[in-house]
Parts: sequence; structure tokens; C-alpha cells
Amino acid sequence: MLILSKHAHAYRELVEAARLPDLAFADAPAADVEIVFGEPSLIRPALPELPSVGWVQSTWAGVEPLLDRSLRRDYLLTNARGVFGPLMTEYVFGYLLAHERLMFQKRDSQRAGRWDAAPPGTLRGKTIGLIGVGTIGAALAKTAKHFGMRVRGYTRASESCADVDAYFHGDDRLAFAAGLDYLVSIAPNTTRTRRLVDAALLAALPPRAVFVNPGRGSTVDEPALAAALVEGRLAGAVLDVFEHEPLPADHVFWRTPNVVITSHTAALSVPVDIAPVFIDNYRRFAAGQPLRYRVDFDQEY
Amino acid sequence: MLILSKHAHAYRELVEAARLPDLAFADAPAADVEIVFGEPSLIRPALPELPSVGWVQSTWAGVEPLLDRSLRRDYLLTNARGVFGPLMTEYVFGYLLAHERLMFQKRDSQRAGRWDAAPPGTLRGKTIGLIGVGTIGAALAKTAKHFGMRVRGYTRASESCADVDAYFHGDDRLAFAAGLDYLVSIAPNTTRTRRLVDAALLAALPPRAVFVNPGRGSTVDEPALAAALVEGRLAGAVLDVFEHEPLPADHVFWRTPNVVITSHTAALSVPVDIAPVFIDNYRRFAAGQPLRYRVDFDQEY
Repeated sequence: MLILSKHAHAYRELVEAARLPDLAFADAPAADVEIVFGEPSLIRPALPELPSVGWVQSTWAGVEPLLDRSLRRDYLLTNARGVFGPLMTEYVFGYLLAHERLMFQKRDSQRAGRWDAAPPGTLRGKTIGLIGVGTIGAALAKTAKHFGMRVRGYTRASESCADVDAYFHGDDRLAFAAGLDYLVSIAPNTTRTRRLVDAALLAALPPRAVFVNPGRGSTVDEPALAAALVEGRLAGAVLDVFEHEPLPADHVFWRTPNVVITSHTAALSVPVDIAPVFIDNYRRFAAGQPLRYRVDFDQEY
Repeated sequence: MLILSKHAHAYRELVEAARLPDLAFADAPAADVEIVFGEPSLIRPALPELPSVGWVQSTWAGVEPLLDRSLRRDYLLTNARGVFGPLMTEYVFGYLLAHERLMFQKRDSQRAGRWDAAPPGTLRGKTIGLIGVGTIGAALAKTAKHFGMRVRGYTRASESCADVDAYFHGDDRLAFAAGLDYLVSIAPNTTRTRRLVDAALLAALPPRAVFVNPGRGSTVDEPALAAALVEGRLAGAVLDVFEHEPLPADHVFWRTPNVVITSHTAALSVPVDIAPVFIDNYRRFAAGQPLRYRVDFDQEY
């Protein structure tokens, strides 16, 4: 196997510690490498030198670099799933609570030496809408219920999460958006989700709504979002991901009111979380069992 | 009955809507008033004009103004409980997540136009210590478990909350503090809790710890807390309550590093939450049943 990751050393230590059977490590792409574990951005340029690869395990949830139609698709591709739910939950609910509790306003008051008794709001009774209800969406829905919120889910087809009160699909997206207090996109980057959060969807949200995007920048029409915020048709946006990263210095979001920019840190892939995904899948691979978290090249996730 | 509250109008509407039997409203203190519902600070000066009062329902959790030993204690005193858990939970975990997610640091970076990829922390696996495990503490413990934290409780005697992993009492307070990531005080203001968070307790905390106080200002030795923060022996403090409120303009906390001041807004008494406590207790009172949330004048809570 070959590890192609900026955390290659940490991953190798964690994989070696698992004492997996029949596993040898290559130090560079080679003709006899059968398994690759690492970041899709590093694996993509190495693919031509990996003619025997049969399985690629991504350390990321997003595998866009490997989905380009010009690339080979003659191997099993699995991504990292099931590990980002808790981190995404801390990110999303941290910022939801920051909004309700007026945290940034109160911090500015404090810096001005002002006793700011403005009454905060509460998540209880508010409605959250989730674009995408996979393992991350299910984790968010569970926490939303813990805080007494109503939960809507917008999915391609699935309705499997019991913590979602109402499901919406396809053309129902404006009905899904109407009346939401919070809209959170954790959809993967696919042809179907591209610019899903567009001017029409944003116009369907009430002006009190806050949009949170720890998912993919490509799902958002960025100029439409900036316009909605500038015109006060939306209360705020918490953005972790963008069409272009790092966000260019001249991007309008740096000057847009009520935007919070978190610089793609919502749920970082940490070796200690991701290595077990590979180790579990290797055991399945060695035993000839189906792998978990397989990516469908046609569905793009 | 007499309502003595700055929200008297809202409370009267809510109580009238409940159509309670045998209830007449007085507009001012009078010799025939038997029941008083309101803020302890407003009830205290009216007590001499209320010779027939048999039951006082406080709209607050804290009843210090009525505990002065020079005052009458010949009536039933009940306080507001069971309603602050969800609000306190949003407050405490909002600020815990703000700390883990580096929210204020990232906001400063954003204002400077800087893409700040500093990796945030996580609540998972961290240890929280609760001073006081009543209904609020139990709500906090449940949410801590939801986020995968370890929970310690420091109580006078009770060990009734199943979400607390380890209980400490009395002289065990330094063992309780050792190794905590977060210390939260929701203890009532009693002779026993006064200055419980003192130099010795603060010294027992690791330097990475954050102290959160949405409870009572009297439980903290404020100069000792400021010294610990200035000397870097504590990572931060989130303070809602103080010995003197509003916090005086010359108070050291306005200039102490890593202090967040939230101006006594953690869990405001809202009529729509508190009126049901009175209404439920009135029905018990009218039926001759024991009232809920009775204050023991000697225990001071």
C-alpha cells in the first residue's frame, strides 16, 4: 500500500500499530501498489503511476479531485464518513448559539466597557433545515432535537433519520426553505447540488434566517448570497467553504455584513479519527467483504 | 394575590388566562393579601405591609433579598426552578464551543482580512466540573454527555444525577478541580458557597481550564480570579454574574485578559416560562398539596 497524505507519518504509525495481515508499505507510487490511502488532491496526479491500484481510501469526505470524467474509474473508491458528525455538530451548534446569544455583539460591548443587558434568544422552538441528511446530517438532527428544535431535511430520496420531522425532495426546495430560522448545507459537491443555494432559495428564507455552510462552496451562488445579506433579506451567514480557497483578498465576503468566515476548519481530518476508517476497511478488503463508505462515481458521492 | 414584578402586566394576563379558582388580584400591598408572586427585590420592602401573606412565589431562582435574618420567615417561600436548565445549557455550551472553536480569535482574523486556518479543538473527551447539580446542573450534565464529555459534580450531599460520572463533596474540592478542562458554577448563593471559587481552588485547576459562572457572583473570589488570569494560570473565564452589578466601570475584569462578560443575561426570567410555575403551585396550594420548589430558609436555597 501507499500513503499519500501530508500526515503520512502519523497515518503510517497508526496503521502499523493495527498489525494488519499481509500489508507492505511503498514509499512512492509504483507498479505493484494495490491500495492507496490519502488525500484525493495528492492521489489524482499519482494515478498514472499506479496501474495496479484496486482500492483507494480517501482521508477526506470530499473526493472531487478523483471524480473528473477524464480520470480512471477502474478501482474501488471509499471516502471518510461517520467521523465528521461530532465535529460538524460542534461547529454548527457553536455558531447557532453564538447567534442566539449575541456573542459577537456582547464582545464588542465589553471591549467598549459597556454592560450589555440585551436579552439573548434561544434555540428552543426554532426550525433548522438540513440540506443533506447522511451521517453528518443525522448527527446535526440529533443535536437539534436535544436543543428542542424542529428539523426539516432536504434530501435526494432518503428519509431514514428519525430525528427529522419533515422531509423535502426535488422541486420542494422553496417549501423546505419557507419559515426556517437556520439553513445548513452539508450536501456533497455533485452536479445536482451545484448552486442549489441560489437567489430563489435565499428569497424563500425569512429575513431572520441564518445560513450555515460547512459543506461545499460549490453549492452556493456566492454573489446572490452577498446580495441577500447586503440588502438585509437574510440575518447572517456562517461560511466555512467557498468556491475558491483561501478566499481571495478581493472577495466581496470580506466586506459583506453579518458574514462569519471560518476558513475551512469546521471538521478537519485528523489521523487519529481517519486511520480507523482505513483499518476497518482493510480488514473487510482482506476478508473479501464489501467495503464501507464506497463512492458511486456516477452519483458523485 | 398581589403581583410585584416589572413584568406584572404580562404575569397577570398569563395567570388570568389560566382561570384559577378563588383568586382575586390586589393592585398594591394590603392587609388581606395572602399570596405574593414576583421579584424578591420588590417583595422585600413590601413585606411589612403584607401581614397576612402565607405564600410567596419568586419569579427568580435566587431569593437572597428575602433570606436576610432580620426579615420575617413565617410564610412559605418557593422559587423558580426547573425552567432555567435549557437556557443555562445554551449559555454554557455556547461559550464552551466558542472557546474550542477559537470563535473570537477567528473573528479578529476575519476583521483583519486574514484566512485563519488554525485548527479548533473539540469538547469530545474533555472534562467538565459542575459546582451544584440541581435541575440546572442535571441539564448541563446531560448536554455534556451528548457532546462526549466526562462530568464531575461537586455537591453538598446529593448524587442523584446519572449523567455525572464522579461526585465530590465537602473537603474534596481540590481533587474535584484537578484536571478539569471546564469548571462551571451554578451553585446558589449560600453561606456555604460564598467564595467557594477561591485562590486555592483556582490553583488546583490546570492552566488550560476555563471557568464559567452563570450562577452567583458571591461564589467567586474576584481578585483571586483576576490574578489567575493575568498570570496565565487559567485559560479564560466566562462571567455572567458579579459581586456588584452592573460591573463597576473601574472593575479589574474590564481590563483582565481572556475574560468574557455577559452582563447577567445567561438565563433571564421570562413570564411565559415562569407563570406556569406559579400556576402549577397555585393549584397545589388550593388543593392543600405540598408546593414545588420550596426554599428552606436555613439551607438558604
